[in-house]
Amino acid sequence: MTLTDTSYCNRVEAPGTFEEVLGRTRAALVEEGFGVLWEIDVQANLKARLGVDREPYVILGACNAHYARQALEAEPQLGALLPCNVVVFTHGDATHVSAVSAEEMLGMVGNPALEPVGREVGVLLARVLESVSRP
Amino acid sequence: MTLTDTSYCNRVEAPGTFEEVLGRTRAALVEEGFGVLWEIDVQANLKARLGVDREPYVILGACNAHYARQALEAEPQLGALLPCNVVVFTHGDATHVSAVSAEEMLGMVGNPALEPVGREVGVLLARVLESVSRP
Repeated sequence: MTLTDTSYCNRVEAPGTFEEVLGRTRAALVEEGFGVLWEIDVQANLKARLGVDREPYVILGACNAHYARQALEAEPQLGALLPCNVVVFTHGDATHVSAVSAEEMLGMVGNPALEPVGREVGVLLARVLESVSRP
Repeated sequence: MTLTDTSYCNRVEAPGTFEEVLGRTRAALVEEGFGVLWEIDVQANLKARLGVDREPYVILGACNAHYARQALEAEPQLGALLPCNVVVFTHGDATHVSAVSAEEMLGMVGNPALEPVGREVGVLLARVLESVSRP
């Protein structure tokens, strides 16, 4: 299966092994002011729950407390869409990093107060992708 | 601030204290075939990171491994939107539970292969909400 461009997330190919890219992604998120609230090892999870094998795939739950607070004040149920996910995965011979589009995701809500938050968090996530795409 | 109806999540008011409702929500998710992959205590997090006080607010990351596997096979970058969040929070004098709308969220992707998954997971999450709304 080929990777198609999507509007709900943005992707870069990142040089290095899966573990190296995962480490750089964690560091880049912290550098841009995100806490990594949790990590889901999808490969290990699906192996344990269903006994199936698949390529490495880790989801990082990234939260900038300042913006999260602001967004929750404007939209009390927004926790249904938080935090921002960043995915590190292998596809073919390469390692990729995808970050959810904060603008698209918050756009789902239809609350104008969230628009600047979506834009600003989007800029930070774009910097994370730019950083991990460098060797 | 009043709670407004939204399309990105569905909400019920649930009888009992916050802790009771949180416990019932965890149990109802397991009953409907979800694993709870992580829990974010937003109140504790924002207190620790920003020193601010707010009402209890917990986000549960709920994943049905069977559907997650199926969805990831159809859409490799879908981890950017997984798992399904269920939020337990207080508002006014009541405890509420909101579950993300799986149909709306997967609808963002625009991949027709995800439509049945969104519908079926939506039915399971509706049962969770129905269950926690009972005393």
